Amino acid sequence: MKVILIVGDGLADRPIPELKNKTPLETARKPSLNKIAETGICGIMDPIAPGVPPGSDTATLALLGYDPIKVYSGRGALEALGSEVDVLPQDVVFRCNFATVDNNLNVVDRRAGRIETSDSSKLAKALKEIVLKEHKDVHITFKNTIQHRAILQLRGPKLSRMVSDSDPQKTGTPILTVNPRDDTPEAKKTADIINKFTRRSLEILKTHAVNARRIKEGLPPANAILCRGAGTLPIVKSISLLYGVHGAVVSVMPLIRGVCKVAGLRLLDVKGATGTYDTDVVAKGKAAVQALKTLDFVFVHVKATDVASHDGKVKQKIRMIEKIDGMVGCILKKVTLDETLVSVTADHTTSLVTREHEGDPVPVAITGPGVRTDNVKEFDERNCARGDLGRIRGKDLMPTIMNLMGKAKKFGA
Amino acid sequence: MKVILIVGDGLADRPIPELKNKTPLETARKPSLNKIAETGICGIMDPIAPGVPPGSDTATLALLGYDPIKVYSGRGALEALGSEVDVLPQDVVFRCNFATVDNNLNVVDRRAGRIETSDSSKLAKALKEIVLKEHKDVHITFKNTIQHRAILQLRGPKLSRMVSDSDPQKTGTPILTVNPRDDTPEAKKTADIINKFTRRSLEILKTHAVNARRIKEGLPPANAILCRGAGTLPIVKSISLLYGVHGAVVSVMPLIRGVCKVAGLRLLDVKGATGTYDTDVVAKGKAAVQALKTLDFVFVHVKATDVASHDGKVKQKIRMIEKIDGMVGCILKKVTLDETLVSVTADHTTSLVTREHEGDPVPVAITGPGVRTDNVKEFDERNCARGDLGRIRGKDLMPTIMNLMGKAKKFGA
Repeated sequence: MKVILIVGDGLADRPIPELKNKTPLETARKPSLNKIAETGICGIMDPIAPGVPPGSDTATLALLGYDPIKVYSGRGALEALGSEVDVLPQDVVFRCNFATVDNNLNVVDRRAGRIETSDSSKLAKALKEIVLKEHKDVHITFKNTIQHRAILQLRGPKLSRMVSDSDPQKTGTPILTVNPRDDTPEAKKTADIINKFTRRSLEILKTHAVNARRIKEGLPPANAILCRGAGTLPIVKSISLLYGVHGAVVSVMPLIRGVCKVAGLRLLDVKGATGTYDTDVVAKGKAAVQALKTLDFVFVHVKATDVASHDGKVKQKIRMIEKIDGMVGCILKKVTLDETLVSVTADHTTSLVTREHEGDPVPVAITGPGVRTDNVKEFDERNCARGDLGRIRGKDLMPTIMNLMGKAKKFGA
Repeated sequence: MKVILIVGDGLADRPIPELKNKTPLETARKPSLNKIAETGICGIMDPIAPGVPPGSDTATLALLGYDPIKVYSGRGALEALGSEVDVLPQDVVFRCNFATVDNNLNVVDRRAGRIETSDSSKLAKALKEIVLKEHKDVHITFKNTIQHRAILQLRGPKLSRMVSDSDPQKTGTPILTVNPRDDTPEAKKTADIINKFTRRSLEILKTHAVNARRIKEGLPPANAILCRGAGTLPIVKSISLLYGVHGAVVSVMPLIRGVCKVAGLRLLDVKGATGTYDTDVVAKGKAAVQALKTLDFVFVHVKATDVASHDGKVKQKIRMIEKIDGMVGCILKKVTLDETLVSVTADHTTSLVTREHEGDPVPVAITGPGVRTDNVKEFDERNCARGDLGRIRGKDLMPTIMNLMGKAKKFGA
C-alpha cells in the first residue's frame, strides 16, 4: 500500500465576519478535498496540544510522528539541513538575516530591502570563513540562501544551542547582545562567539564594495547580520527505520525539507514549485504520484495558504485552497484508492485576523482501503470535528496512517 | 480581550430515575447557560483523566492550566493559604478538625457537634504554640478557621508531607497513629511530631474550661484534634508569568482561594457570597464584571451545587443550577461578547446518588470572538458531548482559552 499525505500550511482558520462567520476552508469550492472527507474518515487534530500555537518546525515533526515536546531542539539546524548545508549532530546553527542598521546599530530594515540573492551572495563570500582569535577551535561557516536569508553554523567542541537571539525581530531597536540561556560554559562560549561574529561582520560589511554601490543606488546597505533560532539536529529514528517505509517530500521550504530530511525522507525538486501563490500545484501533485512508483510514502507540502493568512489576504487564501483542491483532484485521478491512502490536513491554524499561528485544532481526513468511513462530507474545521477520528494529536497521525498501511509494529505479544 | 471562567462545583451529574433519567443540568431551566452553548463551542472535559474522580484541589489546579499529576502536593497547604495563613514552600500543613473522643480515644463526633467558632477560637488559643521538647527546631502553629475546622502548620528543617492521617474519617474507631509514607527520616520525624502534638492536645483540651462548660450544657466536648491531608505548596509558575494575564478569583472557599493564590490570582471578597444555598450569585457576577475593568481574567466559583449532591438533595441542586444561570445572565448582560470570552464548566461530577465526586467528564462551553461555534444549543452533560471541542483534559482548558485570547506562546518557530 502507498500513502500520500498532503499538508496545507496554515490551512485551518477561524470563522470571520467577512465570510459570514465561516472560515476560508468552509467558503472555498473544494470538490476534491470534500471527496477525501466523504469517502474517508475525518477528525480534528492538535498539532502539539490543545491551545498551543505550533511553529512550522514543531508541527512538521509532529506530523511525521515524532513527539515535538521531546525531540525539538531549535529551528536553525533544520533550516540549514533543508538548505543543502551539511549539519552534524553537534553543530549549533542559527538562521540569519542580512539587515540594515544605522550608525547607532539600530535596525532600520530587518531584510536589507529584501536584497537580491546576487548581492547577498557576494557579501556572504566576505563572511564565509571568519576565524575568531579567542575561539580558534570553532569552525564558523556563513552561507546565504535566498535574498536576505542566511545560515550561520558553528562546529567545534563545547557549544550549546541555549543562547538568545541577536535579532530583535523589529525595527527601531539595536542589535541585541546574545546571552546564555543556561549556566553552562558551553552556552556562555556560544553567546560570546555570536557577539564577536556580529561585531566582525559589521566591520567587514561596512566597507564592502557591494554596500557602497547599494548606497550610491539608493538601496539600503546590507551592513549587519542578525542571528536567531539557535538549534541542533533533533535526534530521531528515521521513518524507514521505524516503519520500514521509504518516502519523499515535495516542498520548496528549507525548514520543511530539513525536518523531512531528519525523518529520512528524500527531498524532491519540482519545477514550478515556488512556495508562493504562483506555485505549480499540478506539477507538485504529478511529482508526488510519480514518486509513489518507487517509494511508499510522499509528504506534499503547500506553503502559500499560510502566506495569505500572515498577510491578512482573505481572497488569496480561498484561492490557494482552491488551488490545493486542484492538486488533490489531479492526485485522485492518478492513484487508485484501492491501493493508496490519501490524507489531507494542515500543520496549524493561521488566523487571517491575528495573522499569526494559533493553537486551534486543524481538520484531518484519511481515505483509502480499510478506512472506517464516517458521515462527514466536507473537509473543513467544523465538519471534520464531527468525524469518527475524534480529536487526536499531531504525533498520532503517522501511527494512524502506518497502521492502515499495515506497517505499524505491534506493542506487546 | 477579557475572560470570565465560571465553575459550578460538582455541577455535572449522572442521569437519575427521579428526573426521568435526566441529569439535574438537563432538567434545570437555564436560558443563559444555554446561550453560551448556542453561541459558542462545546465539549466534555476530564478534569484529571477519564474515570478519575477529582478532588476540588486537583481539579482547580487543572482548570488553571497546571498538570495536577505533576504539581499536586497535598491539600493542607492550599487550604491554609486560602485561609489567610502565610505558608512558605518548605512548610508542611495539615487540615484539622476539633472532634469528640470517648475515654478510649474512640472518635464519637468528627466535628464536635459542629462547634461554634467562638468556642473553637478559645480552645485554639490553648494549642496555639505548642513546643515539643524532642522537636524544638520545629515551629508548630495551630489556627482555627470556621466552626470545627483548623490548620496545623509545621515550619522547620527536615519535614515531609509523606505521612498518613490521624483522622480515621469515621466514628467508632480510635484516633489513628500517624505513620511515615516513605523511608525518609523527614517523614519519620513529621509523623512523630503529629503523634506527640495529638497527645499533648488531648491533655490540654481535656481540662479546658470551654469543654467543662460544654459538657455541663450537654454539648459534645471538643477534646481532640484530628489531622489529615498533609501538604506543601505546589511549585508552579503564576498565570501572569505564563501568559502575561492578570486575574482574580471570586470564591469564598478557602481551598479554592488557596489554589488560585498559588496561581497568582487576586482574592476578591464579595458581600453576600457564602458558599451555601443562600449565596448572592448576582453580587458574585457583578464583582466579576467589575474586576474585569482592571484585570484580564476572572475565575468565578460557586460551591453549593456540590453541597446539594453531597447531601443528596435533587431539588436543591436544580435550584442552585438555576441560580448560577441567573448569575450568568447577569454577566452576559454586562459584558460585550465582541471583547470578552465567557466559559462555563464544572470542576467535577458529584453524583446525587453516590453523594461523592465521580470520574465522569464535565460539560464545557466557550463563547466569544473567534470561537468556531458548533451545533450544540444546550449546556449539559450529553449535549456538550456532541460539541466540536470534543473531549479534552482539565489542563487543556486554560491553554485553549489563552489561545483564543491571543496570549498563548508559540512552541517552535
